[in-house]
Amino acid sequence: MNILEIIAKKRDNKILSKEEIDFFIKEYCSGNITDYQAAALIMAIYINGMNEEETTNLTMSMACSGEMLDLSVFGKNVVDKHSTGGVGDKITLILMPIIASLGIPVAKMSGRGLGFTGGTIDKLESIPGYNTSVEIEDFIENVKNIGISVIGQTMNLAPADKKIYALRDTISCTESIPLIASSIMSKKIAAGANKIILDVTCGSGAFMQNEEDAVKLSQTMNKIGKLSNRETICVITNMDEPLGYAVGNNIEVIEAIKALKGDMPQDVKEVVLELGAYMIKLAGLGENIEENKNKIMEKIQNNEAYQKFIQLVENQGGDISYVENVEKFPKAKYIIPVISSKEGYVEKLNARKVGEISGTLGAGRIRKEDTIDQSVGVMICKKISDKVEKGDILAYIYANDEELGNKASKDLESLYIMKNSVVKKPKMILEIIK
Amino acid sequence: MNILEIIAKKRDNKILSKEEIDFFIKEYCSGNITDYQAAALIMAIYINGMNEEETTNLTMSMACSGEMLDLSVFGKNVVDKHSTGGVGDKITLILMPIIASLGIPVAKMSGRGLGFTGGTIDKLESIPGYNTSVEIEDFIENVKNIGISVIGQTMNLAPADKKIYALRDTISCTESIPLIASSIMSKKIAAGANKIILDVTCGSGAFMQNEEDAVKLSQTMNKIGKLSNRETICVITNMDEPLGYAVGNNIEVIEAIKALKGDMPQDVKEVVLELGAYMIKLAGLGENIEENKNKIMEKIQNNEAYQKFIQLVENQGGDISYVENVEKFPKAKYIIPVISSKEGYVEKLNARKVGEISGTLGAGRIRKEDTIDQSVGVMICKKISDKVEKGDILAYIYANDEELGNKASKDLESLYIMKNSVVKKPKMILEIIK
Repeated sequence: MNILEIIAKKRDNKILSKEEIDFFIKEYCSGNITDYQAAALIMAIYINGMNEEETTNLTMSMACSGEMLDLSVFGKNVVDKHSTGGVGDKITLILMPIIASLGIPVAKMSGRGLGFTGGTIDKLESIPGYNTSVEIEDFIENVKNIGISVIGQTMNLAPADKKIYALRDTISCTESIPLIASSIMSKKIAAGANKIILDVTCGSGAFMQNEEDAVKLSQTMNKIGKLSNRETICVITNMDEPLGYAVGNNIEVIEAIKALKGDMPQDVKEVVLELGAYMIKLAGLGENIEENKNKIMEKIQNNEAYQKFIQLVENQGGDISYVENVEKFPKAKYIIPVISSKEGYVEKLNARKVGEISGTLGAGRIRKEDTIDQSVGVMICKKISDKVEKGDILAYIYANDEELGNKASKDLESLYIMKNSVVKKPKMILEIIK
Repeated sequence: MNILEIIAKKRDNKILSKEEIDFFIKEYCSGNITDYQAAALIMAIYINGMNEEETTNLTMSMACSGEMLDLSVFGKNVVDKHSTGGVGDKITLILMPIIASLGIPVAKMSGRGLGFTGGTIDKLESIPGYNTSVEIEDFIENVKNIGISVIGQTMNLAPADKKIYALRDTISCTESIPLIASSIMSKKIAAGANKIILDVTCGSGAFMQNEEDAVKLSQTMNKIGKLSNRETICVITNMDEPLGYAVGNNIEVIEAIKALKGDMPQDVKEVVLELGAYMIKLAGLGENIEENKNKIMEKIQNNEAYQKFIQLVENQGGDISYVENVEKFPKAKYIIPVISSKEGYVEKLNARKVGEISGTLGAGRIRKEDTIDQSVGVMICKKISDKVEKGDILAYIYANDEELGNKASKDLESLYIMKNSVVKKPKMILEIIK
């Protein structure tokens, strides 16, 4: 076996065997296959595609390329949740304590934000003292003790995926379904899950811009799950406008805390309930989705979900007084209202661009090594379908630099597309692929 | 303009503009575009192809990437000849003195052998003293003085082609018509020709294995010629068995010298006449191909072509006593007959494999830095269509290592595919694309 034959095969649109894929991953990681050879193969995969078996083999090969977390101590139904990324996406912060309060173990490694999307770990770190770099033994111990731990990626999970992901970025090969699907699934499998719920975001603020692509990606990941013996359910959710009202870091944490206390934006609620209900089902604790949603509402109403969050924060070294009194979180120096110069019904609010505006204020990263500003961001007031009068406040910009804030305010106003006639509320749950 | 957009365009099977191609070549040569980005683009070109305009733009961009030879001092009709490579291909050695003897200036830079194909420069260097590394001023001076000079590639011609050619080799992207066509044509254009005759070899000993591909390649190069204002004629010639009888270095030179004296193998003669007749036409010295062939035969019969070869060798510092008495060339230590154990008519004799056998004896190079053995090789006695009796000599192996020689003898015998019924002599000139 040699890389020239493997490249030539995919170049000619033939199917790669498991052995060939394993050879590529192993030799690329060990440096025997060069970046330019990998680039040629990745481009051939991008153009000619991969069938489900190839994609599954690629996934497993990448999953096994580094350390693998063993969560079998928590039983056969270890459920993990992953979102393909979005703007204002604080679902993990809300959903995980709910799930843990239902007695389902939550051992979650989350990522940081990059580009226009935020990351759960960055948001959690806005709680003073919250330690996201926890040794794996302690991580497992935490889950054993209180049923939940949410940390950063401290293990060397799927290093092959990291290497290929970085390469894809430099050779215009990011938007490929087999490559995206194998990237996501390899990380989830390496992180020890055997039941996986995927929030496949779709729309202007997501990598999948249209439902057709989101369905294709979901079907592929679903099939990888089947072939690799990890039951996988994909929930395709709407990401045309930001999720909820807050886009940033500590303002999203505050929104999540309020949600756990029962004050949940409608769109956030729909996504939390749907994902949560399927997680309960995957955990083997309830087949009926509507009943599962009721179980979730109960955990919010009886305060157990919120208490679980407090427990999580405390256990990770975080200062719970911030959770108990969100006014303690540092506020941005300038809170600038975005005033509407038009009237009508909000028709569009490009989520990606809102994410980018939040990024310009300092809430996001352009490069991995950038630091982020915890208190800045955008607080949306008017969402799609809302009626707006001239002079109404569309949103608030949270800025620590006045000039940047004023620019963001102008930019955000221009993002609001209005219509004279009534606009329907967007459907949040677009499809379930199981 | 940036490389990510350019890669994405070709990845999506769109047409690249002249500016985009120029940007790629310039930035790749200067190191601003990495090998892995170039590899991704080359793979996309391989799979999605390039139209004639793109291929011409790529050709011109590569041609202009380094030094360019200016031969305009020799008039408007500077004709260059190139072969896409073969086994036993000594056409340049015979044809160039003929052309020069007709008063057409011959300023030829030739290449060295690599893999199973031989190179004119290696062959010429088997004449003691022949200097193939001549300064460009002296090269031009030589042509002015005696009408001919044949040297190695001493200029930095089309460095972008060299870089891309080397990369293609490591990423399974060699057999692509736009990439091959632009590679050949860029070198010819940089070498100063404005009229180009191309010997497009076709068959087991050529890069183009079948006539269909050879026609496609020819049409592409022809079109590049038209679009770049360099009249180009392609002669598709048969390379199913080695050309002539000798395969090696000094034994090919000896065969060429004999040919210039009138003793020319039939297949060699057909190719020499056809290519030569079209070169005369391109030089503007005769429209009628049959008449041109007669002119060539005359130059052989009246010894002028041979005299021109003597003049060439002398002028380049070569010892003409070797040309005048070919017995002076060093002979291989072992001349091993290859005896037929079968009888019949020769149906096949895989040229590439004969070239490889000659290579194992030391006549060729596997890597660029290898040295070659001038006296070894294969002397074919029986060619396709010849009748063979059991015990007949099929060929002689010229070896300096007995063991290697014996192995080569065995290998060569097994290459002879015999048939009981009469086999037709192969047609040498398959098609003319003009």
